[in-house]
Amino acid sequence: MQSDPLLDNISIVLVDTRTPANIGAVARCMMNMGLGRLILVDPPKDGNNDAARLAAGADEILRRAAVAATLNEALAGQHLVIGTSRHSGRQRKNVRTPREMAEQVVPLLAGNRVAVVFGSEVTGLDNHQLALCQEILSIPASPAFPSLNLSHAVMVVAYELFIASRTGVPAQPRELASAGDLENFYCHLQETLQAIGFLDAGHPDRMMFTFRQLFGRARLENRDISILRGVLSSVDRMLRKGT
Amino acid sequence: MQSDPLLDNISIVLVDTRTPANIGAVARCMMNMGLGRLILVDPPKDGNNDAARLAAGADEILRRAAVAATLNEALAGQHLVIGTSRHSGRQRKNVRTPREMAEQVVPLLAGNRVAVVFGSEVTGLDNHQLALCQEILSIPASPAFPSLNLSHAVMVVAYELFIASRTGVPAQPRELASAGDLENFYCHLQETLQAIGFLDAGHPDRMMFTFRQLFGRARLENRDISILRGVLSSVDRMLRKGT
Repeated sequence: MQSDPLLDNISIVLVDTRTPANIGAVARCMMNMGLGRLILVDPPKDGNNDAARLAAGADEILRRAAVAATLNEALAGQHLVIGTSRHSGRQRKNVRTPREMAEQVVPLLAGNRVAVVFGSEVTGLDNHQLALCQEILSIPASPAFPSLNLSHAVMVVAYELFIASRTGVPAQPRELASAGDLENFYCHLQETLQAIGFLDAGHPDRMMFTFRQLFGRARLENRDISILRGVLSSVDRMLRKGT
Repeated sequence: MQSDPLLDNISIVLVDTRTPANIGAVARCMMNMGLGRLILVDPPKDGNNDAARLAAGADEILRRAAVAATLNEALAGQHLVIGTSRHSGRQRKNVRTPREMAEQVVPLLAGNRVAVVFGSEVTGLDNHQLALCQEILSIPASPAFPSLNLSHAVMVVAYELFIASRTGVPAQPRELASAGDLENFYCHLQETLQAIGFLDAGHPDRMMFTFRQLFGRARLENRDISILRGVLSSVDRMLRKGT
């Protein structure tokens, strides 16, 4: 399985899902985000074709999915169980956002199995099912229309887990040009702008400051500076030809 | 419309979408996350029922969606255009994560219109389409299976924008140049660079892409564009004198 070794301790548990296509879509977004373990509680009997079609290449997750008759059975062997809920009801004090949850869960993954539980498309998790969860997760959404499709809800949670599992590791840092190389570029720029008559030789500072701000925002790398100085050199050559 | 007034300056642009159901699913997750403006470039002729079914209550967004024949037409009036890409190709240095993008975009929303562009399900955005975008966004995903369903990709982006819009309020918003003014600048730049012999007239695209990335990072305002075009005009004048 291609899932991340750390993320392999996470299970997504779908309870009473009605629509097979949703199970397929969930498998796809799990695999997108490096998750591999799917547990289905009382899944629909038919519709495997729909599920496979929506999985779009993540059918390995469907084939390997565990099936449980009850949520209790599905949670055996899990160390931390997080239930998802659309509503943060009166009694539900321990409600976290997906981001808070992911930041808390990832450091626990090395030695613990964690389950994130999603209820049926229509009713979500009922109070009895939520009682089996140690923590409750609610996805922030517009009050005007807070009802997420099941696979979209799984995507948000899986995405936050994937991001949290990668933090600490630098992505691909850009290597910026040094201050010295930048100054040489600005000198060249000023000379050429004066030579073509754009810059008033007497009062270049204000306009040069604007250029410094503009190119400063662009965070130049050495390659950018080579290109920009290449343009200036082309202008310089034209000037020499002209005179 | 129930969308957040700040988020109302964001448009989701779907280019060459093949599957109507995906358009419906996108509308639903937009509405979940407080977004209301959908622009469809060359959408499928049929399949409105599929789209409405997947929208599941967000059909108002479908009904109000703007339709454009080309991406260029869709982007008229937008100030910041962000393209989404699965790959961070060799030339694509200016690639941000959805979270970085959201944190940078939300402070700009008070005075600017922002478009986030998604390509077709099969091919994504091609290089010509990406060249019309000032910034490129890539959703982190498992290298083993990085291909997200279109609506899942929109969900991640919309979710990050929604979360970022609820934190922090913009201090001093900058007013960015429009996409049209930017395109005029890039045209002028290309002409002048060819005239001075810096740019190979036969193969300008690669280098122009680099310039678009560089100036894209700088987030140009109208004043910046006036200054840069002023420089180009000075070079143009000098060339005319020389000949």
